[in-house]
Amino acid sequence: MNSHTPPTAPTPLAFTMGDPCGIGPEIIAKLYRDGHVAPGCVVVGDVAVMRRVTQVVGGFVALAQIDHPRQVAQVPPHCMPVLQVKGLSADLMLAPWGQVSPSAGDAAAKSVGQAVAWALQGEVSGIVTAPIHKEAFAAAGVAWPGHTEFLQQLAAGDGPVAPVRMMLVNESLRTVLVTAHLSLHQAIEAITFDVVLQTIRMAHECLVRFGVPAPRIAVAGLNPHAGEGGLLGDEEIHIIGPAVAAARAQGLQVAGPLAPDTVFMRARHAPDHPGEFDVVVAMTHDHALIPIKYLGLAHGVNVTLGLPFVRTSPDHGTAFELAGTGKADASSLRAAMRTALALIDHAASGVLEAASSLRAR
Amino acid sequence: MNSHTPPTAPTPLAFTMGDPCGIGPEIIAKLYRDGHVAPGCVVVGDVAVMRRVTQVVGGFVALAQIDHPRQVAQVPPHCMPVLQVKGLSADLMLAPWGQVSPSAGDAAAKSVGQAVAWALQGEVSGIVTAPIHKEAFAAAGVAWPGHTEFLQQLAAGDGPVAPVRMMLVNESLRTVLVTAHLSLHQAIEAITFDVVLQTIRMAHECLVRFGVPAPRIAVAGLNPHAGEGGLLGDEEIHIIGPAVAAARAQGLQVAGPLAPDTVFMRARHAPDHPGEFDVVVAMTHDHALIPIKYLGLAHGVNVTLGLPFVRTSPDHGTAFELAGTGKADASSLRAAMRTALALIDHAASGVLEAASSLRAR
Repeated sequence: MNSHTPPTAPTPLAFTMGDPCGIGPEIIAKLYRDGHVAPGCVVVGDVAVMRRVTQVVGGFVALAQIDHPRQVAQVPPHCMPVLQVKGLSADLMLAPWGQVSPSAGDAAAKSVGQAVAWALQGEVSGIVTAPIHKEAFAAAGVAWPGHTEFLQQLAAGDGPVAPVRMMLVNESLRTVLVTAHLSLHQAIEAITFDVVLQTIRMAHECLVRFGVPAPRIAVAGLNPHAGEGGLLGDEEIHIIGPAVAAARAQGLQVAGPLAPDTVFMRARHAPDHPGEFDVVVAMTHDHALIPIKYLGLAHGVNVTLGLPFVRTSPDHGTAFELAGTGKADASSLRAAMRTALALIDHAASGVLEAASSLRAR
Repeated sequence: MNSHTPPTAPTPLAFTMGDPCGIGPEIIAKLYRDGHVAPGCVVVGDVAVMRRVTQVVGGFVALAQIDHPRQVAQVPPHCMPVLQVKGLSADLMLAPWGQVSPSAGDAAAKSVGQAVAWALQGEVSGIVTAPIHKEAFAAAGVAWPGHTEFLQQLAAGDGPVAPVRMMLVNESLRTVLVTAHLSLHQAIEAITFDVVLQTIRMAHECLVRFGVPAPRIAVAGLNPHAGEGGLLGDEEIHIIGPAVAAARAQGLQVAGPLAPDTVFMRARHAPDHPGEFDVVVAMTHDHALIPIKYLGLAHGVNVTLGLPFVRTSPDHGTAFELAGTGKADASSLRAAMRTALALIDHAASGVLEAASSLRAR
């Protein structure tokens, strides 16, 4: 247990505004407009960008510029605190909605960089990232293809990067990916004993953070019918099965490798259908994302495992075609906020230490 | 249009009894017990096996042995007509529930063989196959790994085998597989321009049979984000995209290649969510089967495309652990019967000829 006295105000949770030309700023403003933001959140980005979207969303959203996360506690309830990021381009407000813009990509990247800096200093407890646009990142000269890789590098500083994994969560399913943004051919090559075992352990640790003390983990196979005893591929026999056995030997509760086509059905949790598993470890991007997205995107949340802070994001992109129209749906961002708060609450209550001790074994 | 006078009684639809040691005979008997069998159906199998399961399912199921499909019309309503297959092993009734048995595998195979013979003679209009067990097939010396390959060979006789494809249908989704029972590595190798184009055409023809005159076909990619312009794999650029373009040039309404993780969500049809597509062509077994099975197996139906007769089956196996208990769920078999009848009705109404003319172009 943590022996420190808890602080009087909780450490703020940060939203990064995302690409100013996409729907990110707008969906953040909608959460404030609708009173859906938990106390102690803060937006990291640009005050003028956020002020502009308060017009788009209608209703009344008060905005307070602050200079340090600790000032969040002084902002009145339902007012949106915005931490102004320094050094943004003077022509940021000239970037049109729905288009790739270097100044917008730069502002999105700097907002993430600032939020990570505060997270590493312990001044924010976690980060909920609104969507960035990969081409805008590239136009701004940011070398990382997406949020996750960028966060991984920022968290590493000058040190070696730590392995991260993508987890997807919605109201009925949690899944962690062994491989993500690789061609299917490369993904097959990237599946090794070490990578699978590490993914199982990271999935376990995250579930403990979620407050599940003894997570039931299912590991999906790679091949149809999980290889059917070697007839339909042997990765289950030589790689995935041994990794499952090693995880079991470490005391984790792991089933598999199981047939990919039924494991998500079995894990699906609904009021009339209690799931058999708390999380599914999936070998490929689409084995995991097809069932997560099948019933709709509104509540899908992306959680990055392996960073030294909590990070979640909505399971959609910048939706340039909707930017500036006021029509974007803030449900997934709201779910991402709630997921981050759940992870932080359990961490603060000491469960994090239990997870950390497991990691150290 | 067909110029022949329609027969006074419709050509019967055949159920094959499946493996006698599994749940196949029982779920057929349940449909008769509950009055769920359409008029003009017939069971192809063994009278003693079918009589035994009428005891298991309870209620009252009358059974009439017949020797030719044409006699179905003389069987009273709600009575189960059984076409006795010749040459079955004398010890068939000694094979215990839930175990692999050579005599049971032999009986299952001969039932399928007899049904196909009648289908090829036009004496039955289609076949709904109850589940067989691959190991029992092997124990009986039947060389085919499963139903589909066995049917493909039976339909070919001494001639060359015609290509077949697996289609899965439930109340909210239809999907046709480019590759099925191959390792994921072999599946990637098996995806060629010709195979993809042929699958698109077979999907189109089947949808026309289902009564959809201008089917909206989605073609899923192989790689995450459908390759993201080549960054995550190039099969979409070199193989799948050109096949989609060729299908369009032939007048078909085809979209793709689309990201695998959202195409099934977009195609999903529900009362509050009209699907954007009538069918999804999927590159791999599990891209297709994960969404089909995600909400449960009760209504999943497997349709074999490319055979010279209609063939459907439930989307589950012999469930040896349930055999003889009376607990097996007949919903998927009922859905398979309805799907076969829908395909036959549209075929009989002349839509089949329209589909055939397309095939001949």
